[in-house]
Amino acid sequence: MEELKEQISNLITQQQWNQLRQLAWNDYLIPDVASLLIGLNKADRVIMFRLLPRPVATAVFSYLEKEDRNALLKDLTNEETRYLLTNLPPDDRTTLFEELPGQVTQRLLNLLNPDDLKEARLLLGYPEESVGRLMTPDYVAVRPQWTIQEAINHIRLKARNSETLHTIYVIDESWKLLDSLELSLLILANPQETVEAIMSKSFISLSAFDDREMAVKVMQKYDVFSLPVVDSDGILLGLVTFDDVMDVAEEEATEDFHKTAAVTPLKASYQESSIKDLVGKRMGWLIALVFVSLLSSGVIALYEQTLQTVIVLTVFIPLLLGSGGNAGAQASTLMVRALATSDVTADEWIRVFFKELMVGLLLGVFMGIISSIFGSMRGGLQIGLIVGFTMLTIIIAANLIGVMLPFILTKMNLDPAVASNPLITSITDVMGLLIYFAIATMILGPL
Amino acid sequence: MEELKEQISNLITQQQWNQLRQLAWNDYLIPDVASLLIGLNKADRVIMFRLLPRPVATAVFSYLEKEDRNALLKDLTNEETRYLLTNLPPDDRTTLFEELPGQVTQRLLNLLNPDDLKEARLLLGYPEESVGRLMTPDYVAVRPQWTIQEAINHIRLKARNSETLHTIYVIDESWKLLDSLELSLLILANPQETVEAIMSKSFISLSAFDDREMAVKVMQKYDVFSLPVVDSDGILLGLVTFDDVMDVAEEEATEDFHKTAAVTPLKASYQESSIKDLVGKRMGWLIALVFVSLLSSGVIALYEQTLQTVIVLTVFIPLLLGSGGNAGAQASTLMVRALATSDVTADEWIRVFFKELMVGLLLGVFMGIISSIFGSMRGGLQIGLIVGFTMLTIIIAANLIGVMLPFILTKMNLDPAVASNPLITSITDVMGLLIYFAIATMILGPL
Repeated sequence: MEELKEQISNLITQQQWNQLRQLAWNDYLIPDVASLLIGLNKADRVIMFRLLPRPVATAVFSYLEKEDRNALLKDLTNEETRYLLTNLPPDDRTTLFEELPGQVTQRLLNLLNPDDLKEARLLLGYPEESVGRLMTPDYVAVRPQWTIQEAINHIRLKARNSETLHTIYVIDESWKLLDSLELSLLILANPQETVEAIMSKSFISLSAFDDREMAVKVMQKYDVFSLPVVDSDGILLGLVTFDDVMDVAEEEATEDFHKTAAVTPLKASYQESSIKDLVGKRMGWLIALVFVSLLSSGVIALYEQTLQTVIVLTVFIPLLLGSGGNAGAQASTLMVRALATSDVTADEWIRVFFKELMVGLLLGVFMGIISSIFGSMRGGLQIGLIVGFTMLTIIIAANLIGVMLPFILTKMNLDPAVASNPLITSITDVMGLLIYFAIATMILGPL
Repeated sequence: MEELKEQISNLITQQQWNQLRQLAWNDYLIPDVASLLIGLNKADRVIMFRLLPRPVATAVFSYLEKEDRNALLKDLTNEETRYLLTNLPPDDRTTLFEELPGQVTQRLLNLLNPDDLKEARLLLGYPEESVGRLMTPDYVAVRPQWTIQEAINHIRLKARNSETLHTIYVIDESWKLLDSLELSLLILANPQETVEAIMSKSFISLSAFDDREMAVKVMQKYDVFSLPVVDSDGILLGLVTFDDVMDVAEEEATEDFHKTAAVTPLKASYQESSIKDLVGKRMGWLIALVFVSLLSSGVIALYEQTLQTVIVLTVFIPLLLGSGGNAGAQASTLMVRALATSDVTADEWIRVFFKELMVGLLLGVFMGIISSIFGSMRGGLQIGLIVGFTMLTIIIAANLIGVMLPFILTKMNLDPAVASNPLITSITDVMGLLIYFAIATMILGPL
């Protein structure tokens, strides 16, 4: 090893690049090459790393410690870095970028051309649907000690496109975010003042690892049209702008719509989804709900005798189950949406419970009266009574199930939108039949 | 009349305001006062109008022609104008403001303090959910012939708040919108150039009478965070900003969610809605759907004999109707959302029909096989066959109903969201029962 090291050092000093490149690198073990590399001085290290066959270089890089990796990354060209990133094994890549200093991440983002941005954000290892995937490095930053005039000159110089110039970021030497200033504030200020003089330091920022829904909520709450994204040390990485956030809000709403109807959210638009995608996203829930429906069938099987004796009871099954399902779907949808828009919080379930108990009672009384009339017309007073009371009870119960299930799911840290209309309908079917037969047996006596 | 006119003219000349005010105005007919008013010269006219008891003034104003109204409005104080607006009959108010010159509307908006803005937009007669109700007059406008430096000085002078300074509007003498420029463009330009030199004249604007959903769509399409609002002559009235538009997008999505579950959209948030509101928004659809469900009951009544003979058929009613309803709800929700986000347009119904025919077929085959197994287990091969075939047919039919109803509603210029999950479920119930009994009678023979 020592010998090889000296040989390489000599080849470098003599600038014998070709000979160096043609060494039988593949014959050496990766850990040996790695430790050899670390043993070189910084300048030689970069040169040698660059001369390694690329697959070897990538493998060696995987082997290095955090500090050595960062030191190397700082000296590589953007193209070399990109090759590295693309070829590292995914788990290595993720751990690499979790530890990468904000300044390096940011440099990477800044050097890439817009077309590569999407890929880069992916490579940078930010999770799907995270703020990191939305951010752009198109911002202009100034220093607090500059005068306004210097800042404006810098903005004129650095401006890449006017769209992201509306907010100017103030940073320190380590690129740590100190404030965000509207461009108009700079224009209105005295040009001889310093930037620091107009800083409020009350800025809002996102972490690159935040869920993208956080961007929507923060933007809506603070009415700002762009938000800076920082790493855990507060280093400015990029910004997210309102247009991307509006798209996210629409996509999130679409996902919730699909969940409402027990469709696993499509990854693409409807137009782009293949028949196979569509079937796949719908089949799972349809089959799962078959098993809930089988419970309903089981209840009917249990009361087959009753139905055969008083066949007119069968006539009202669609009316009673249908209305229960409708009331439950109304209630769950109201609640899922209220929770999604933070109109209602999970802690308020008791208030909502009693409010909806009243709503269900009122709806139930109305619907009970109506259906008891139909029941009497078809099967006499007794049937009218059974149908009316069943309707009253079903509506109240279905309404409460619809209201409470989203809260229960939230408390279990599940998505309340799982309380889809089809799920609620299937559950209220089972419950409705049980109520129906219980009331029928009570009024008609055992059959 | 001539006499009265002269008397008034004299009283005005002599500045006998009290005497003029104390004339028995209520004794005269409104049309007479109106024609008397028109007969006066402009200066006298305003004075007399101001001295009229306010209810008389309002009635007279209603009587005037468009031009006379506008002439008067120009000379009234803001407070007087507001009184007029508040007290005009609603229909008069609306017609008045439809004809009001943009300059007058804009002056009104500009003079009002922010607290009055909400009321003013209401008074200005813009329809509910229109862009007019969203707009704010907080903008800064410049002239094309100014130099950039002059423009920036003007912006510094006029700036009310920095939030709406990001876009500067270029107008002509009649306040007609010529262009919208990002503030940053001005900053980047040579201060000695004219504004005209950096104008692109390719701006996007909204009409105050546009539906507010238009603001969402335009903002999403063009990625701009504020949009100028103009009247039919292109006069700048105000602007809408992304924060209001994001709120609109959320409200519109919430409305669509509520419609999905057959709830008439709540006017307020869930928290703010009273029990009475909630019952009111849900009862109508629940009752309407009772009548659809009665059709299902009717179908069962028609086949009561069949059911009594082969009671096991009853057992599978919840499974078959439930699955049909679920598939229909999935399909309609996918379609309603795709239409709402312009992912699919109304003209594409044929492509969607065939795509969903395939999706329904595949789902139907899977579901048919599963349920034929359950059917056979419970009632033998024949029942298995009936249940399986019914499931296949119901899924295909329910899927197509769910997909096509939103298109049909769109073609009828109705809101596709009327195709709510409860409506689809109720319709597929009727259809499902008809299919079930048809297939059962076919396989079992007449009973």
